Amino acid sequence: MQTLHVELGDRRYPIFIGSHLDPQALLEPYIKGKQVMIVTNETVAPLYLKHYVTALEALGKKVSTCILPDGEKYKNIEHLNLIFDALLEAGFNRDCTVLALGGGVIGDMAGFASACFQRGVYFIQVPTTLLSQVDSSVGGKTGINHPLGKNMIGAFQQPQVVLADMAQLKTLPPRELSAGLAEVIKYALLGDAEFLTWLEEHMDKLVQGDETLLAEAVYRSCAHKARIVANDEKEQGERALLNLGHTFGHAIESYLGYGEWLHGEAVATGMVMAADLSCKMGWISQNDLERTRKIIARAKLPIVCPQIPLDDFLGYMAHDKKVLNGQLRLILMKNIGQAVITKEFDIDLMKQAILENQQS
Amino acid sequence: MQTLHVELGDRRYPIFIGSHLDPQALLEPYIKGKQVMIVTNETVAPLYLKHYVTALEALGKKVSTCILPDGEKYKNIEHLNLIFDALLEAGFNRDCTVLALGGGVIGDMAGFASACFQRGVYFIQVPTTLLSQVDSSVGGKTGINHPLGKNMIGAFQQPQVVLADMAQLKTLPPRELSAGLAEVIKYALLGDAEFLTWLEEHMDKLVQGDETLLAEAVYRSCAHKARIVANDEKEQGERALLNLGHTFGHAIESYLGYGEWLHGEAVATGMVMAADLSCKMGWISQNDLERTRKIIARAKLPIVCPQIPLDDFLGYMAHDKKVLNGQLRLILMKNIGQAVITKEFDIDLMKQAILENQQS
Repeated sequence: MQTLHVELGDRRYPIFIGSHLDPQALLEPYIKGKQVMIVTNETVAPLYLKHYVTALEALGKKVSTCILPDGEKYKNIEHLNLIFDALLEAGFNRDCTVLALGGGVIGDMAGFASACFQRGVYFIQVPTTLLSQVDSSVGGKTGINHPLGKNMIGAFQQPQVVLADMAQLKTLPPRELSAGLAEVIKYALLGDAEFLTWLEEHMDKLVQGDETLLAEAVYRSCAHKARIVANDEKEQGERALLNLGHTFGHAIESYLGYGEWLHGEAVATGMVMAADLSCKMGWISQNDLERTRKIIARAKLPIVCPQIPLDDFLGYMAHDKKVLNGQLRLILMKNIGQAVITKEFDIDLMKQAILENQQS
Repeated sequence: MQTLHVELGDRRYPIFIGSHLDPQALLEPYIKGKQVMIVTNETVAPLYLKHYVTALEALGKKVSTCILPDGEKYKNIEHLNLIFDALLEAGFNRDCTVLALGGGVIGDMAGFASACFQRGVYFIQVPTTLLSQVDSSVGGKTGINHPLGKNMIGAFQQPQVVLADMAQLKTLPPRELSAGLAEVIKYALLGDAEFLTWLEEHMDKLVQGDETLLAEAVYRSCAHKARIVANDEKEQGERALLNLGHTFGHAIESYLGYGEWLHGEAVATGMVMAADLSCKMGWISQNDLERTRKIIARAKLPIVCPQIPLDDFLGYMAHDKKVLNGQLRLILMKNIGQAVITKEFDIDLMKQAILENQQS
């Protein structure tokens, strides 16, 4: 087991990364009060819920559960409210702990609920997908979607502790493992050329679910994100780099309807578009663009999106949070392993990069 | 005009207190971005909305408005969502400002919406009731009610600036002015015996709406609250003193249904119950209890509540947030002007204090 500490001043917390982790021993120091609400979904509950209920009850906790339907389309205010209902119906007070057992949607919703319930209670994350292990376990971003935009309503809420158990990835559908690898690749592309070389060496085994290599990839990804977040917790600057591929990706997700493509799939194609625009701007070489396409394809991720009318695509991009005072900023690559946030790009080249990475 | 600075480290902010304040000059330095959403209600909008829209437009801002129905019963998740709808339909991004123009309900909802929208945008408060001027303008508590409890869902969100304009109290119904005075009296009872003497001297003119005296009462109340909040922003200890009368008061409000009695009225009777229990415990004298009753009655506030079955009353008290690990804590008085948070009280005397301060 490896331990990574996310350094956020008085809200420093550990991420435990390994296989077959022991929740009873690892979680005990991080639970506040006697009441623990496990928030999970209908897919994860039959697989892992009992394991965690048993572990927490062995610690003498009063454990309640809130089982939500599975899917991004339930990441809304109505289903958030079901968590509040469960907390209050179980008589929870402000000295309680909310534990998220599931992927990114569950982490976002349970985390946001824990930030708001009684104006803030303890939060623990047990991410059960690769995507949530490398993404939402670091950074404290929580929230819900609104019909007019993704993650428009939320809070920064840091967990007390995160358990990232590779053994739980065994039950993850291959498509979701690949979606997680999209974010892993993102860390390499935006800030770590050496990590990209490592991924090029090991991608085939990663796709096959090698737990030791996956643990290493999770550790490196979280360490990378943790460094950036520690420098810029509230996303005033550097943290925006983590959105490489996301502005394009959000447009793809929004057009197709949330849940049609997985978030990681949309980000994958979004990164190709960002790399292509970076290449068209003369910042990265054609060879770097092909390396980008190839590592994404080897992770079994899409490198083109379905045909989307340009006006629709641009409209969804304008709804993205990276629009500052009406001016679109993008995360592009000055080099492989060196992303920048910039509004200094050619809008026509951007349109070409969107159109040329769609299915013909 | 007086200026009070609430000291909260990097989130220090001013409260401007006076009559006929100029929003254009006073607000300009505290607005982020070009987009301002004014959240108000159907009662306040016809009186003051145009004044603020005009002032902000003169500053070159794009001003949108969200007008909610008036009343505590609308302080719920459905009406909170109307604010998010308004923000997104107007195309607001993360560089925007939410301005609350109204009483405590509007301040709580707009503040909570500003804390959650895009994970946090700027917030400005223009409290238009005496209660919200002396209570919600300091402390950053925002939130909404849930059918199972008051203020169960919320956030700590500090405003950038607060304008407390006494001239706006002219349109306040006398019953609401009195409800505000309940909180003013609370500051005296919990921590400032000299302020109680001042209130005993000036109560008749305060009830009549004397703007100069009201400004002084608001300044002293906010200064008192600001000192406590600066010491204990997240309510780990001392801040709980501000809940003098509130645990009893919440039970009264909950039983009668939110909105039947005003919050300040319930707190007024709650303070009588707390004082009575403090007297029965031998901590304050019979004379101090009578001073408490008399100043509350002179503010035209109720000193007894309707008959409420004891079991119901206790049940609602147990839902209060002051229950820590199942143990009820109360704010009682060791002396006039010296409140304490304690679980060391006689439960039978508490029941007597509840029953003896009901209508016979």
